[in-house]
Amino acid sequence: MSVKIEIFDTTLRDGTQGEGMNLSVEDKIRIAQRLDDFGVDFIEGGWPGSNPKDIAFFQRAKQIPFKHARITAFGSTRHAKNPVESDPNLRAMLDSETEVVTIFGKSWDMHVINALRVELPENLAMIQDSIRFLKENGRFVIYDAEHFFDGFKNNRDYALQTLEAASIAGADRIVLCDTNGGCLPHEISEITQAAKAKASCAIGIHTHNDSGCAEANALAAVRAGATHVQGTFNGFGERCGNSDLSIVIPNLMLKMGCEVVSEEQLRDLHNLSFYISELANVPLRRNQPYVGTSAFAHKGGIHVSAIQRDARTYEHIDPRKVGNQQRVLVSELSGQSNIFYRAEAMGIHLDKSTPVARAILDKVKQLENVGYFFEAADASLELLIRKELGQYKPFFERVAYRVLIDRHQGGLWSEATVRIKVGDEILFMAGDGDGPVNALDTALRKALENHYPRLSEVRLNDFKVRIIDSGRGTAAMIRVLIESSDGEHEWITLGVSENIIEASWNALVDSIEYKLLLDEK
Amino acid sequence: MSVKIEIFDTTLRDGTQGEGMNLSVEDKIRIAQRLDDFGVDFIEGGWPGSNPKDIAFFQRAKQIPFKHARITAFGSTRHAKNPVESDPNLRAMLDSETEVVTIFGKSWDMHVINALRVELPENLAMIQDSIRFLKENGRFVIYDAEHFFDGFKNNRDYALQTLEAASIAGADRIVLCDTNGGCLPHEISEITQAAKAKASCAIGIHTHNDSGCAEANALAAVRAGATHVQGTFNGFGERCGNSDLSIVIPNLMLKMGCEVVSEEQLRDLHNLSFYISELANVPLRRNQPYVGTSAFAHKGGIHVSAIQRDARTYEHIDPRKVGNQQRVLVSELSGQSNIFYRAEAMGIHLDKSTPVARAILDKVKQLENVGYFFEAADASLELLIRKELGQYKPFFERVAYRVLIDRHQGGLWSEATVRIKVGDEILFMAGDGDGPVNALDTALRKALENHYPRLSEVRLNDFKVRIIDSGRGTAAMIRVLIESSDGEHEWITLGVSENIIEASWNALVDSIEYKLLLDEK
Repeated sequence: MSVKIEIFDTTLRDGTQGEGMNLSVEDKIRIAQRLDDFGVDFIEGGWPGSNPKDIAFFQRAKQIPFKHARITAFGSTRHAKNPVESDPNLRAMLDSETEVVTIFGKSWDMHVINALRVELPENLAMIQDSIRFLKENGRFVIYDAEHFFDGFKNNRDYALQTLEAASIAGADRIVLCDTNGGCLPHEISEITQAAKAKASCAIGIHTHNDSGCAEANALAAVRAGATHVQGTFNGFGERCGNSDLSIVIPNLMLKMGCEVVSEEQLRDLHNLSFYISELANVPLRRNQPYVGTSAFAHKGGIHVSAIQRDARTYEHIDPRKVGNQQRVLVSELSGQSNIFYRAEAMGIHLDKSTPVARAILDKVKQLENVGYFFEAADASLELLIRKELGQYKPFFERVAYRVLIDRHQGGLWSEATVRIKVGDEILFMAGDGDGPVNALDTALRKALENHYPRLSEVRLNDFKVRIIDSGRGTAAMIRVLIESSDGEHEWITLGVSENIIEASWNALVDSIEYKLLLDEK
Repeated sequence: MSVKIEIFDTTLRDGTQGEGMNLSVEDKIRIAQRLDDFGVDFIEGGWPGSNPKDIAFFQRAKQIPFKHARITAFGSTRHAKNPVESDPNLRAMLDSETEVVTIFGKSWDMHVINALRVELPENLAMIQDSIRFLKENGRFVIYDAEHFFDGFKNNRDYALQTLEAASIAGADRIVLCDTNGGCLPHEISEITQAAKAKASCAIGIHTHNDSGCAEANALAAVRAGATHVQGTFNGFGERCGNSDLSIVIPNLMLKMGCEVVSEEQLRDLHNLSFYISELANVPLRRNQPYVGTSAFAHKGGIHVSAIQRDARTYEHIDPRKVGNQQRVLVSELSGQSNIFYRAEAMGIHLDKSTPVARAILDKVKQLENVGYFFEAADASLELLIRKELGQYKPFFERVAYRVLIDRHQGGLWSEATVRIKVGDEILFMAGDGDGPVNALDTALRKALENHYPRLSEVRLNDFKVRIIDSGRGTAAMIRVLIESSDGEHEWITLGVSENIIEASWNALVDSIEYKLLLDEK
């Protein structure tokens, strides 16, 4: 079926309800512009009646010429006691001056009675009055039927009456919401079909992930006739999150033949997801379908040899269609030949038959035997290969370091000193921090900052510690992984030692060296 | 429909194919025991033909009396050139001496021709011979039909012939695998129905998450007649991961009325997911359905007031059914519901109504908010409870410590000094070691050995480091778990700090205190 499906993004409204999510007005404007470039149809900017920050967003958004997307303000139906003209929530929506407004009302009798504490007929009037008022004020009205599925299961007739009220009042879209996220796809399918029969306008779907089926539920509704899909990028949102548009959109286009955005826009999917997660400061899940860094990563030896023969053997789509890429991991489970494959991906051609290629393989094998794990640390692997090939000119040399952790009289101090050689100059610098690694990082960057000012761009995003060869207590080998970024690139380096400080130091030095190599390229 | 569904866990095999996943043999044994307690039916331990570590697992597993679960070894059908008797992969499966074996074969003609490079009829013979051979050797045989769905879409007749081959040879279960994870639920549903008509045994389902529908796909297959479900806890696995059993199991039980485990076992779901992620050192997603810490967390003001009136307004199930709990953000609460239960297990009776019980709960809650995780560290929890109850007389007091790590001229030194008070005596002692924690451990024990000679029995068996609140680089909070033993008992303690040395020191001191408490009992 080649149906056109409208995409309604609510990353900026429902997405920010997620735990730990927080976006500034500027961030929201930037994300809205990227969503517009990508081709979404509606962008829900916020709830002006609940939040002054959201009012500021709509003021800023008015000045921006969006190419395709329509910005929408969100709000509830009028309060039970208020006439529409004097309801502050409806007023705030109109004051946002958006062409489109999205208004939610209640479909679940239990919710109307227990939470809203309003009579059932009064709730129908609230829906109808509010939509009619917004229509009279010239707005395109999207009606979100909150808890529609739970309401339908509890009192089918009443739930359908709420949709009729919205239809009669002239809603332009009626969106069925699985607000609690508890439905399974077969329920969504049946109930959407029943609802579609009652609505005089296009039907939409809004799902949450509490049963782990948010995306499957959105697809089930589309198969049952919905033509408008609401969701957030990366599935951000309250509790378990909303339906993830970075999954729903490629499924609709590549698996169900729907028209959504152009093929070229779809190739921006991976970058868009990454961009939104960067601004939200919530890391993208590595294994996120379609857009995660592991989504097309192969580890098992059998898988690796099969994809080299035909990528379809272990890839459901060509990753380039969503701007992602195939990766081959190096690990104890896979053959060493993966190294050649990964070197190619770094733009390094290695001729298998040469002694230097042999030497690189031996080195990797030897290091993995003592606990290195290059699968997770591409940047350290690239440094190793370039050093062996003589393609790496040292930016600095390590001479010495010292770390002191001092706990007494209720205080705790971490200090580090480093000695570094740049050219003929020995640099000696001290740093402190919340812990020994932070202190070392501070000292190393202070020592290098005059020679390499762009190191100030580097942020350490994540730091992982793994004890290998467990069973020997605190004298086991320790592997440290550090994930760094400079706003443009992200890279992972590693260090291994019996000593956690030395392992961290090695990973830190690799991270700094890799950044210097990147800037030189 | 009240159907009994078998659960086949492959966290230890397919789960470890995930990027960054790595489990020691000991960790695998511990997880298998927890899975057995939880009530899964099959535990796939590894692929003995591909990996010596997995052979070691099966040797250890043989010595363990599992209550309910059956351990299974994994492997492929015979190689095209080998007779079954001399196929090393089949041999390795038999040598594992498991009652159940799981064997995979190819269903997709394209894969047989392009990747395996074998004629189509030969592939059928490989399936049939291999299963028959394993049956002749007395095994219960689970046949995994790899790429079954892709095969069916490409060449329906051939895909069904592979199932017939497995049926004729006597397979006890035939499992339809969406190996590439690209299917959508409606496809799974139609194809499973067609396959079920051809199989003479119970049908299973094995799904991956590349379309973001792994769990919905497993449920669709069950609705189409599958009675055996394969998956991993937390959805660990290659690329985007396998179907997540921590989502599938509660959906089957609470939403579809299937029989899976007991209600009491289901209440262990949250703890089990946490435990597995802790051992795998892969953090649980906060928004993971059912088991994540955000899964029943409420942030929006309207939501919070509604759930206070009736929790059903924004919760799809009662979180206690899966051992999770409601949280209202702002005042961060985390899992302490089982504290009383666990105190009983330590032989401590706590009366809920007393102020001291309240104080213990408050303290646990407060510590868990900053990153403590008592689920994994019973010994630290017992110390905390006994200290609050006044049942702990200090054996020593910490006064100060200092740690120095010094790297220069090719050498690396780790030294620690500790100041400890025993009675009125201040003891000052130095220690060195392979790393800072080892040095601290040495110094602490040297300081105490005259007063408490039995401390020489203590061995630190394992040491785990976990960064919490990632995204802040090296200044994140760090949780250290130390597992100790004295030849008779084993115990786990923890410490939390921004500083890895301080966190380790706290876990070390708890370990020594717990040993002294044990000896006193």
